[in-house]
Amino acid sequence: MLAETPPGVDDIMSKRLAYLGPPGTFSQEAALLYDEKAHLVPFPSIPAVATALHSGMAEEGIVPIENSLEGSVTHTLDLLIQEDTLHIRYEVVLPIDHVLLAADTVDATEVKAVYSHPQALAQCRRFIDRCFPKAQHMASLSTAAAVEDMRNSQVPSVAIASRMAATLYEVCIIAQNIQDNPHNITRFVVLSQEDHAPTGIDRTSLCFSFAHDGPGLLHKALGEFALRGINLAKIESRPAKRELGQYIFLIDCDGHRTDIPVQEALTNLKALSSLFKIFGSYPRWKD
Amino acid sequence: MLAETPPGVDDIMSKRLAYLGPPGTFSQEAALLYDEKAHLVPFPSIPAVATALHSGMAEEGIVPIENSLEGSVTHTLDLLIQEDTLHIRYEVVLPIDHVLLAADTVDATEVKAVYSHPQALAQCRRFIDRCFPKAQHMASLSTAAAVEDMRNSQVPSVAIASRMAATLYEVCIIAQNIQDNPHNITRFVVLSQEDHAPTGIDRTSLCFSFAHDGPGLLHKALGEFALRGINLAKIESRPAKRELGQYIFLIDCDGHRTDIPVQEALTNLKALSSLFKIFGSYPRWKD
Repeated sequence: MLAETPPGVDDIMSKRLAYLGPPGTFSQEAALLYDEKAHLVPFPSIPAVATALHSGMAEEGIVPIENSLEGSVTHTLDLLIQEDTLHIRYEVVLPIDHVLLAADTVDATEVKAVYSHPQALAQCRRFIDRCFPKAQHMASLSTAAAVEDMRNSQVPSVAIASRMAATLYEVCIIAQNIQDNPHNITRFVVLSQEDHAPTGIDRTSLCFSFAHDGPGLLHKALGEFALRGINLAKIESRPAKRELGQYIFLIDCDGHRTDIPVQEALTNLKALSSLFKIFGSYPRWKD
Repeated sequence: MLAETPPGVDDIMSKRLAYLGPPGTFSQEAALLYDEKAHLVPFPSIPAVATALHSGMAEEGIVPIENSLEGSVTHTLDLLIQEDTLHIRYEVVLPIDHVLLAADTVDATEVKAVYSHPQALAQCRRFIDRCFPKAQHMASLSTAAAVEDMRNSQVPSVAIASRMAATLYEVCIIAQNIQDNPHNITRFVVLSQEDHAPTGIDRTSLCFSFAHDGPGLLHKALGEFALRGINLAKIESRPAKRELGQYIFLIDCDGHRTDIPVQEALTNLKALSSLFKIFGSYPRWKD
């Protein structure tokens, strides 16, 4: 059997992984799923995670990029478009399971307030209406903050948050899987100075735009992938900030940027584009 | 000069327009911009606006579909994908101007709490940090609810909301244009049983998906538009609910669905698709 690493050394050697805090959020769950040995450092916003990477406060950062119900996380997309030194190194796909929390056992008929982030309240609307038809819906700044708000409440209250928040704040889980739509999945990306080496089952994310708007340009761009049998996993257009009607296109394609067909497609696409940026190549998440 | 219509008759004859409430939201501003004579009826959620249309509580409904900073409003996209009787009849583009409200004049150094919807708090983060570095950020269920929360607060407070909320709740506007990014625009759509007749400057929105995922299918689909010189204004992929990796594509193209080239492109696209649905053709918004 191997000797255990002395505590101090392990802490110094482990990678610092910035995440969108506070502790108890789904981002922390994703961070642990990615690397449970990393030293997790919470930051208050997605741009703050980027600043942590630039300034050396962390080697890697994990942020949400897409939710199956809510769509893309535009702050993350905009960061990738604007920042030249950030690359996608890994992806993590996390099923979102909202749980109902209480400081102690509760009598449902007595509950006067349900705390959560407005998005989580909206995702559990049917459950709340059925179980707590007369309770007030109370907005919190995050699902983790909702647990604190519930504990400070003067009336009998419950909170909707992550399973991790229950452990962290030592409160009871009184119901699970309470979201109206069971297919609630969030995709996170791990950001770093460099992307990932080829593994054989990879994905590449990039963005591009054209100097002039014109019929057929996007069709021509996608032809570079179609011609080489490269599957597109995702396509999206984001308004370029200055004008409505000017767009930046974001694409996820199968394969690594160093695979010959992908490399050719990207070289030709770059020649067509005014803006062109590869966010990175990284291993595909296996369920 | 024409005689004025008696009050009662005008009220009975005016169209009922459902919007995403409560009163004082940006949706109400968009509703008034669309038709200031309509009888405005607030509903608590986007699906509730749809129900209002189905059940005859309103003839038309207005909902947000896209914001330049936050991206698509997925609840609206999903509603259009799922509901067969709703069509887009009009679009309205509204610049989002967040204003700072107080019950009376305030001493900035005394302010202890800033109330708003978490999204508005995030969009005005730099302004808040600069002017009220020590104030607590307080989450509300909507920007309109924030004004009420501010009025009920026990400590000196301000709220971030729409200009309309100031009028409605009779509070003072103490600062305007306080969002960090000045290019903050929301696009709304007016939903109805029928779309709009051709005007000559139109747009058509639709969605489609393929029975099997395969390289080149999307390229072939977009070819139908490129071939006919039809400009695409927007493209987006949404995960089909059941599986990650299966996508529904949403497109806005220039022209009316009854224009011959558009009609041909749509007929051919339909033949390629497993799911195919035209949300409607409607006049383009003129700034």
